[in-house]
Amino acid sequence: MSLCDLAPEYVRAISPYQPGRPIEEVARELNLDPASIVKLASNENPLGIGPKAKAAVAAQLGDLARYPDDAAFSLKHKIGQKFGVKESQIILGAGSNDILEFIAHAFLAPGVSSVYSQYTFAVYPLAVQATGATGIEVKAVDYGHDLEAMLAAIRPDTRVVWIANPNNPTGTLARPGDLIEFLEKCPKDVLVVLDEAYTEFLPAEKRSDSVNWLRQFPNLLVCRTFSKAYGLAGLRVGFALMSEEVAAIINRVRRPFNVNNLALAAAEAALDDMEFLRESVRINSEGMAQITGTLQRLGIPFIQSWGNFVTFHVGDAKALNQYMLQNGVILRPLAGYNMPNSLRVSIGLPQENARFIEVLEQALAD
Amino acid sequence: MSLCDLAPEYVRAISPYQPGRPIEEVARELNLDPASIVKLASNENPLGIGPKAKAAVAAQLGDLARYPDDAAFSLKHKIGQKFGVKESQIILGAGSNDILEFIAHAFLAPGVSSVYSQYTFAVYPLAVQATGATGIEVKAVDYGHDLEAMLAAIRPDTRVVWIANPNNPTGTLARPGDLIEFLEKCPKDVLVVLDEAYTEFLPAEKRSDSVNWLRQFPNLLVCRTFSKAYGLAGLRVGFALMSEEVAAIINRVRRPFNVNNLALAAAEAALDDMEFLRESVRINSEGMAQITGTLQRLGIPFIQSWGNFVTFHVGDAKALNQYMLQNGVILRPLAGYNMPNSLRVSIGLPQENARFIEVLEQALAD
Repeated sequence: MSLCDLAPEYVRAISPYQPGRPIEEVARELNLDPASIVKLASNENPLGIGPKAKAAVAAQLGDLARYPDDAAFSLKHKIGQKFGVKESQIILGAGSNDILEFIAHAFLAPGVSSVYSQYTFAVYPLAVQATGATGIEVKAVDYGHDLEAMLAAIRPDTRVVWIANPNNPTGTLARPGDLIEFLEKCPKDVLVVLDEAYTEFLPAEKRSDSVNWLRQFPNLLVCRTFSKAYGLAGLRVGFALMSEEVAAIINRVRRPFNVNNLALAAAEAALDDMEFLRESVRINSEGMAQITGTLQRLGIPFIQSWGNFVTFHVGDAKALNQYMLQNGVILRPLAGYNMPNSLRVSIGLPQENARFIEVLEQALAD
Repeated sequence: MSLCDLAPEYVRAISPYQPGRPIEEVARELNLDPASIVKLASNENPLGIGPKAKAAVAAQLGDLARYPDDAAFSLKHKIGQKFGVKESQIILGAGSNDILEFIAHAFLAPGVSSVYSQYTFAVYPLAVQATGATGIEVKAVDYGHDLEAMLAAIRPDTRVVWIANPNNPTGTLARPGDLIEFLEKCPKDVLVVLDEAYTEFLPAEKRSDSVNWLRQFPNLLVCRTFSKAYGLAGLRVGFALMSEEVAAIINRVRRPFNVNNLALAAAEAALDDMEFLRESVRINSEGMAQITGTLQRLGIPFIQSWGNFVTFHVGDAKALNQYMLQNGVILRPLAGYNMPNSLRVSIGLPQENARFIEVLEQALAD
């Protein structure tokens, strides 16, 4: 037996996450000018980083040889004030993905199980699998979470349930009332991870009051990111709010210094930049109308989305994706989600959306 | 049973890593002026970030809303050329700590074991414990690795052996010949992690030709960091070189986008800044002489160190540490390493070392 054959079976069986393809990589591979490429593949903020966050990063450049503040005093204080929680209820991550993996490592192991929906964020099943726990996938309804079925799927050995709201890659949204009912019925010894990576894009009346629910449900964890509406994907920073008890367990498996110096500074400044956040939401809302209006006009079915992306169904998604790529438009194929006939497009700037539409119409005409 | 009681026993038993205390935290707690504080607690580069790395970071500030290149094409290409390995033999981490944890998650689980030395880097036993594997600590000889005893401690269920060279926090160094002998005798199905975080500080004749050993020993992994001599601790980036097979397994548990945009750019530039690296090594060598000369003169025993720090033995280390703190000098207490009578001081700039010496002499006189 070789060294690698002796790695746990469940590790050897992992197919790593497939990220959206970077502009430079596509440019190299297809011999395109990087400046001509439009990337609508990773649900990034097309406006870039906000001005306050950028200034905070620039102000910090002299101090990069020191390790970051592992306790993240300043950022945790700001988040605590903004969301009305104690610092000891906050876990920071290098992106919320980091936190999702801490959760898995803290609560899962061979012999227990974890529940998630079909068509949900690929990192949940991957994080579960990496611990050797059993993943229980619950069939989706209309591409969204079937909360009742998820409740029914919980077994005595279930430790964690994952709910993405809005869901990525489908963009579906659960109603606040349905989530509360789920939390009320869910066994109290099961951690409910409510991943709200896209919550900032929601109109106020659709948003769950999830942070306030923490008082009532000590088994709830609310996860947020700075990678989407806040425009800090490249710096890697996210946060999660939970009971102090759950935070204390997760802190046991958190890497020291897991959030870098500049990400800490940028995130703190970003929380103060409400103008940039509003503008990001506005540009997304307009772009969403621009793209879904076109899909409608072209007769291409799509899933109504509450995020900064929309998933649409075409016959041969692989061929269309390749055509789009060759014409410098990077989309996200969803074959890995068992949606081989679908593609996901992130909402970009008006001119980026227009380029997507132009190439799409060209593809259909060919 | 509450949710947290159901987390695996080995996770609940973890005492998280205690980092060196940040300047701002000490200033707040002891009501000191941050500018008056000298931090010699975390083996950071006292020169700060190098000029080429700093320029690379500054040039990248416009592009922070995009996810990093997960394949790290450019940095891996540079590392591959510099060290004569294929890109597929390289794993990058958010600091080498990140890679150490990937190794543990990829190869360890309940039911297997892992071997490390007494008085070695605290992250090895922590990373092992977090997987539920059994940690086997081997008694040190003169505060360094007893390679023969470590070999003898390997059991049929041992999957990973950790060797820090130079070792942190003791600064001891294993001879290249002894390491080769260890590798020759070590079972081929045991991964040998050779953590060379401080290798750049070694004189050429003391350095192991470890990267070349990779050809002969497919179970060897050589780990390096940009946090020490390269001065990028705040950005979080490190790398490891290994066989393609081992890299393929580790990639299965690597977080997507684990190294941020700016760290990728800074690390690539840092590898080209030989002048800064030389200056960092020179200032360390002079500071080491300044500090060890003083310890000698004061009759304070210390462990000869090959890193950018030195560990010395005093009677009541806790009291001395508190005195130093109150006088604005942050050192690293080693009680967590079962060395309650020792303190570790990182080598700083000449004036920082002088301040350490001044307060130390004051403490002894009191």
